[in-house]
Amino acid sequence: MASQAEGVSDALVLFMPSGRRGRFPLGTPVLEAARQLGVYVESVCGGRGICGRCQVSVAEGVFAKHKITSSATHLSPFSETEARYAKKRSLADDRRLSCSALIEGDLVIDIPVETQTNRALVRKRAEARPIEREPVTQLCYVEVDEPDMEQPLGDTDRLVRAVEAQWMLHGVRCDFPLIPRIQETLRQGDWKATVAIHDDGQPTIVAIWPGFRDKLYGIAVDIGSTTIACHLSDMLTGRTVSSSGTANPQIRFGEDLMSRVSYLMMNPDGLPALVKAVRGAIESLIDKAVGDAGADRHDVLEAVFVGNPIMHHLFLGIDPRELGGAPFALAVSGALTFPARQLGIGINPGGRVYMLPCIAGHVGADAAGATLAEGPHRGDEITLLVDVGTNAEIVLGNRHRVLAASSPTGPAFEGAEISSGQRAAPGAIERVRIDPETLEPRIQVIGLDAWSDNEEFTVKIDQVGVTGICGSGIIEAIGEMFLAGIITRDGVIDGSLAARSARIQQTGRTFSYLLWQGDQEIRITQNDVRAIQLAKAALYAGVKLLMDKYGTDHVDRIKLAGAFGSHIDTKYAMLIGLIPDCDLKNVAAVGNAAGTGARMCLLNKSYRAEVEDLVRRIEKIETALEPRFQEHFVAAMALPNKVDPFPNLAAAVTLPAPKVVAEGEGRGRRGERRRARGTSAEGAVAPLPPVPDQG
Amino acid sequence: MASQAEGVSDALVLFMPSGRRGRFPLGTPVLEAARQLGVYVESVCGGRGICGRCQVSVAEGVFAKHKITSSATHLSPFSETEARYAKKRSLADDRRLSCSALIEGDLVIDIPVETQTNRALVRKRAEARPIEREPVTQLCYVEVDEPDMEQPLGDTDRLVRAVEAQWMLHGVRCDFPLIPRIQETLRQGDWKATVAIHDDGQPTIVAIWPGFRDKLYGIAVDIGSTTIACHLSDMLTGRTVSSSGTANPQIRFGEDLMSRVSYLMMNPDGLPALVKAVRGAIESLIDKAVGDAGADRHDVLEAVFVGNPIMHHLFLGIDPRELGGAPFALAVSGALTFPARQLGIGINPGGRVYMLPCIAGHVGADAAGATLAEGPHRGDEITLLVDVGTNAEIVLGNRHRVLAASSPTGPAFEGAEISSGQRAAPGAIERVRIDPETLEPRIQVIGLDAWSDNEEFTVKIDQVGVTGICGSGIIEAIGEMFLAGIITRDGVIDGSLAARSARIQQTGRTFSYLLWQGDQEIRITQNDVRAIQLAKAALYAGVKLLMDKYGTDHVDRIKLAGAFGSHIDTKYAMLIGLIPDCDLKNVAAVGNAAGTGARMCLLNKSYRAEVEDLVRRIEKIETALEPRFQEHFVAAMALPNKVDPFPNLAAAVTLPAPKVVAEGEGRGRRGERRRARGTSAEGAVAPLPPVPDQG
Repeated sequence: MASQAEGVSDALVLFMPSGRRGRFPLGTPVLEAARQLGVYVESVCGGRGICGRCQVSVAEGVFAKHKITSSATHLSPFSETEARYAKKRSLADDRRLSCSALIEGDLVIDIPVETQTNRALVRKRAEARPIEREPVTQLCYVEVDEPDMEQPLGDTDRLVRAVEAQWMLHGVRCDFPLIPRIQETLRQGDWKATVAIHDDGQPTIVAIWPGFRDKLYGIAVDIGSTTIACHLSDMLTGRTVSSSGTANPQIRFGEDLMSRVSYLMMNPDGLPALVKAVRGAIESLIDKAVGDAGADRHDVLEAVFVGNPIMHHLFLGIDPRELGGAPFALAVSGALTFPARQLGIGINPGGRVYMLPCIAGHVGADAAGATLAEGPHRGDEITLLVDVGTNAEIVLGNRHRVLAASSPTGPAFEGAEISSGQRAAPGAIERVRIDPETLEPRIQVIGLDAWSDNEEFTVKIDQVGVTGICGSGIIEAIGEMFLAGIITRDGVIDGSLAARSARIQQTGRTFSYLLWQGDQEIRITQNDVRAIQLAKAALYAGVKLLMDKYGTDHVDRIKLAGAFGSHIDTKYAMLIGLIPDCDLKNVAAVGNAAGTGARMCLLNKSYRAEVEDLVRRIEKIETALEPRFQEHFVAAMALPNKVDPFPNLAAAVTLPAPKVVAEGEGRGRRGERRRARGTSAEGAVAPLPPVPDQG
Repeated sequence: MASQAEGVSDALVLFMPSGRRGRFPLGTPVLEAARQLGVYVESVCGGRGICGRCQVSVAEGVFAKHKITSSATHLSPFSETEARYAKKRSLADDRRLSCSALIEGDLVIDIPVETQTNRALVRKRAEARPIEREPVTQLCYVEVDEPDMEQPLGDTDRLVRAVEAQWMLHGVRCDFPLIPRIQETLRQGDWKATVAIHDDGQPTIVAIWPGFRDKLYGIAVDIGSTTIACHLSDMLTGRTVSSSGTANPQIRFGEDLMSRVSYLMMNPDGLPALVKAVRGAIESLIDKAVGDAGADRHDVLEAVFVGNPIMHHLFLGIDPRELGGAPFALAVSGALTFPARQLGIGINPGGRVYMLPCIAGHVGADAAGATLAEGPHRGDEITLLVDVGTNAEIVLGNRHRVLAASSPTGPAFEGAEISSGQRAAPGAIERVRIDPETLEPRIQVIGLDAWSDNEEFTVKIDQVGVTGICGSGIIEAIGEMFLAGIITRDGVIDGSLAARSARIQQTGRTFSYLLWQGDQEIRITQNDVRAIQLAKAALYAGVKLLMDKYGTDHVDRIKLAGAFGSHIDTKYAMLIGLIPDCDLKNVAAVGNAAGTGARMCLLNKSYRAEVEDLVRRIEKIETALEPRFQEHFVAAMALPNKVDPFPNLAAAVTLPAPKVVAEGEGRGRRGERRRARGTSAEGAVAPLPPVPDQG
């Protein structure tokens, strides 16, 4: 053992990767030192050398910057406890149990990555951060005094005392419904028990098992209007151990959210059925995730939920009708924590449900989760985070300010209101290229990797079929048509090109472009172009409003969240002016960021505090109330925009020279604009401007 | 208006009866001053002059001791708000609304007694104290901001903010099950609402009504093994507005507590039936109390319960079998607070249940309530508080120390094991006098005021009948037999007196005294005397143990709680040595002290803190573990006691000269002793000493 200088009574200890450091008296257990510094090290058994969760290793060498010479010999010799654990459960050579290993000199301690990181969340992106665990619920093994006639405290009271003394907690309570089971459990475990403590400021015993137990799971659920996704995490390692997903069964009450609200307006007694549908689906998902992982649902002690405001309300059993019309009042916006038994969702009844806060009436807990995950508020870059849906949720800002709004894009990006539109499913056209000389297209179809000019496509396409065009396909088609000069900056299909290509065809007073001719004809009609223009203009106008409010004329980074964001080619999104100009390498899809935010809140309670604080700080902009929305909308009808320059885009793509073409006659376009936010809810019509007719 | 000295900017205000005082800037509302001093003044509307609960009056005159010249003119003139209230609801001439009346000079303010006192609790005893109200649940009228699209907080969140701002509270939460109803309620009340706030450290909205509402009730329930009593209090005045009582329906599972535990030992699945029986009875009682008062059960927001440990457990749904044998482990001993919806007892589901703490396995929440009510811990006098039952609960002490124990008296005092014993009911002999010369008795019977030597008795007795002897009757009978020399100090009926009186009759080897000869013969047999001796010796030995532990040879005051304590003549109780010697004028029955304690905790949260602290401090003595119990027991078999002097008793009563009489032969007395604590539960036999046979 390296000897310490005579008379030295403490040592410097640095914990990695957190970098926290402090001096500790020689003989202090490493676990104790970590706790004093607030470095999270798991321990279920409370330092008894049973659970093995508190493993650490020593970084050997001279750390000049920290003035530490670290060596495994600066720990106390391998203890009997560790030997017993190693024999029973095995312990890697470089590992020590931090509850048993005592500090005997300066040390750099590594917290192994599998104990401090949720590996599943380390995505392959530069900004991905490992999620340190600091769960709000932890397992605590305790040894409880037996009943004593001379100190006649109740069994529950003695249990609470044991937890307080052995886990250094104060003011511990016990969930009332647990109390009738405590006597039997303590006796079954011969006065040893493991309790689950939920601690969000008031440590509470929420579950109990006889003896030692080290299984603890948590579930993160993203309740989408179309699909519900559920991830089961092992809370002791942070690993996602299984996932399950299902269609939202509420679809039978209405395809989109507003039609479900309409259903309730017509059937005020229909609320229980809607609530039951979503809770039942979630219960089945949890069952499946738990079953797939070979876990026990009673070991699931935490459940975190995100969802848009309407799903948030329906899940909680709240009538969402107020969200169907101005002023779009949420029943509750703040984060909620309550026992699972109050919902009946099939986890341990004493487990706690955490709902992330909603930002506003159309910017839900899903947007809050996505914002937490993508962290515009943590950096200097002005970041735009967009989740495209029937209502696009838009968040803009950096660590100084964050603003949020929703914009009524309508369902066009989901293929609705497009003549050949369909959901993203096999057979849907998802990629389009148009030769600017011949105006001939090439396409790629979901379910087939080859492009249509490849022989493989010809061979296999009959198996898949070409059934329609999905949201990302229509964006590419319009982008390519624009690049090829088939449509003008104003969105008019240039009928004069019919002379050059048989694919430009007249239908009534307008023209269309024949994208595919097979069993089905797939065309991009003038109406289709208008529908996409309206949708993208609504989104862009919302983004511009936030940029105005922030006082910036550019964004540094764009993150596209959600399924749609994952499928569109960011170049085409910018080309049609769906998103503002930005260096294309800083534009990326971020996948299910809402779900990631939910998992962060599941694994680490500090993220709960962060998202709650963040949502309080976010400046909420109601686009319907902003006079400039119309002006931005009108400008955004053009491709990519009538007034905004797109220098980054121009550098990456050769934009066509402007030309003016008359559309023929607009046909009832004004009426179509009602399909946005206000589609089915009275009084909820967003103030969209007139479409500039050119006839 | 009396003018203040130039430049004086504040005034001295004294509140009566609390005596709290302070200086306040001129213009401060009186209500605000009261709050700052912690003087409880009710207000439901939060100072809007609507509820009229905050009335005060000014004491006129010179208060030299306080250096205050107080005058009604030192308040601001009668305000428009007060005029409006006075017109609508009337206001006595001397009354002001303290929310409207501003301090403009020195004042002595009287808080009217009906707003600060629970009149029902002011009993006609010297030590009775008015109970100041400081309820844990209060009604708060609030005006909530309407939804604002630019500040899209949820309705619940805006409600919480309004409560915090308008009632100066922090960290207010809202019960989760209430949230789905909040939107509709706020709209019904046009953004005005009244909420019930439960605040035991964490202010929580537990109920909500549209608009202004000032009805708030609370219920205090004493769950006895034989009867359950329930009192409904108007929480805004403190008045008890109705009471109801019923037999405990668990009697069908066993007359006494231990037989109910035995029932469970034999029928482990019987718990739900026992739990349902007691909760159902309580629900019916609450229904009746609420109906009698013309109240609405949803306005009952607090319920406080006391009961012995077994009833405490059964009510909470806890299996009480552990209480049937050593070490008599309580499942939970500390006080509990939880929402009523977790039990289903028919008050507002968001109302809160408070269970007083249990002291020990045989000293329950009822004893804790009685101790709180009778307050031995508040004075200097060494006070003995006894609740006689199958297990007597004994509390001894003063403000320096309080000790508690239970003693296995058995059911003899309830008339069981007595040859002609019966419950206290019409027809039972309750008073006895024996002429020491003639040995002829006079009796008084429940249901008839006259003594048996009165002509009225002769006329009316046939209607009532003489059916047996109740607990207080047997105590008087034995006391009088002792005074008349019919039984010796050792409890032997002196057969030689058969020569003097035909009432002394031989039965086998022992003698009996014929107390009444009618349709039924009512005798006091040697067995009866022995049964009472055993019971009173057990109680006295317990008392003596506590006196030993405390280190005192006397008690200053004796309080007899419970129904039995209310009926016995304290002189006879002392004469037979049931209680220790004490100045008889300091010995009194205190009625249902447990119920009083429950009502104190209902009306004032500081009593909850007091009883919880008290129970933690009480030194619990387990008589079964004390070696001196047997010694005390043996000495206490004598009348009044073999070793202890009874100087106070001797001064009040002429005690007979000692004489020794042989009993004949004891017949199997040893076996009978099992009827005490351990009657039906294995392993629970209290260490009673052998009965000193004299044969």
